[in-house]
Amino acid sequence: MLDSAQDLFFSKGYEATTVADIMEQAGVSKGGFYHHFTSKDDLLEALVERMAARALARLQPILEEKGLDAVACMNAVLSRSRQLKAEDAPVIRATFDIVFRPENVALYHRLNRAVNRVMMPLFVDIITRGKMEGRFRIDDPTTTAEIIVQLGASTYNAVARAIEAIGTPQADEAAAALDERLRQHGLAIDRILGLPDGTLVYSEPGFAKAVLNVPAGRKR
Amino acid sequence: MLDSAQDLFFSKGYEATTVADIMEQAGVSKGGFYHHFTSKDDLLEALVERMAARALARLQPILEEKGLDAVACMNAVLSRSRQLKAEDAPVIRATFDIVFRPENVALYHRLNRAVNRVMMPLFVDIITRGKMEGRFRIDDPTTTAEIIVQLGASTYNAVARAIEAIGTPQADEAAAALDERLRQHGLAIDRILGLPDGTLVYSEPGFAKAVLNVPAGRKR
Repeated sequence: MLDSAQDLFFSKGYEATTVADIMEQAGVSKGGFYHHFTSKDDLLEALVERMAARALARLQPILEEKGLDAVACMNAVLSRSRQLKAEDAPVIRATFDIVFRPENVALYHRLNRAVNRVMMPLFVDIITRGKMEGRFRIDDPTTTAEIIVQLGASTYNAVARAIEAIGTPQADEAAAALDERLRQHGLAIDRILGLPDGTLVYSEPGFAKAVLNVPAGRKR
Repeated sequence: MLDSAQDLFFSKGYEATTVADIMEQAGVSKGGFYHHFTSKDDLLEALVERMAARALARLQPILEEKGLDAVACMNAVLSRSRQLKAEDAPVIRATFDIVFRPENVALYHRLNRAVNRVMMPLFVDIITRGKMEGRFRIDDPTTTAEIIVQLGASTYNAVARAIEAIGTPQADEAAAALDERLRQHGLAIDRILGLPDGTLVYSEPGFAKAVLNVPAGRKR
């Protein structure tokens, strides 16, 4: 059902796809659909959760690599995460096109919470390690992880502006502004963890453009 | 219409109040209601915006007080804000009872955004001053204000737990845990602004209990 829904969302668009379309494509009954999901938004949340779980599975091995301290580990996770986003750019673009519509802001927060729930253990693990190494100056790793994952939502406006600008003469400028905004996001997290400014790398010039300026779709 | 709705929400409860109830109590037609609001949630957002605007009006004069540097000003705003919350405890409790229900998490984020929109200029003003005074080590005051107001949402789980515990033997413990969580919130903001730990006071022991352990209602 998730695969059928994802296909439909990408081909027809999220708003245009009905629960009936999904049931038909997946060959399930009304009872079958509502056994698993309460609504189309609910299904989208499950889809985003699956995307996050798959990303987590590809980030998790970094924690097992030998010789990485918590700072190196965090930067490796951030770097691999940017790489995954660039690889999945068409899917991310398609998802963002739905989620960053002004009328879908509540849906954005719901999906953001779902992603954060999936990613929390990874961050708790790294932050606990950084505290034990004496490198992260923090009290409680779980609270710190909660603060850091929630902070992602503060980039909402910058992302929304960059998406809105796609296809206009302001697109490159808005993408560069998002890169700068992500750099400042990284600075805030350095500070929260008690690290020198610029320790963690949350963005690279050109990253936002590479993820956003692709046609929405399944795969590149 | 806002007053009528507020009365009904507090007497009958938010879920039990219908748009028809509000129209009847306020003596407005269906056309009159839908001219101003698209739904009951939309009206609640307007109500919360009005509460935030009233709070802002009582905080704003602090910025005009002579002899306060940005740190003193921020702490005065935080302290007056706690005082207002304690005074309005029954109203806040009633609002939280609606907003922190698990099924209303999207509504929580919507209302949180509305409050943040109202409060942003106050924080931009203080943060700009702190940067000019050389006390806040930050780049862009607007971005920093955006980060700080958004960070409030990271306390969601701790507030939800404290509300859930009201009336149980764990109530005091959960309220104390929320006070501690707010203290850690303050530390994160100290760090983001480049201030020594403990500069800004976001909580006091007993504050959460004073706000939450009151009966929900209009006024004490």
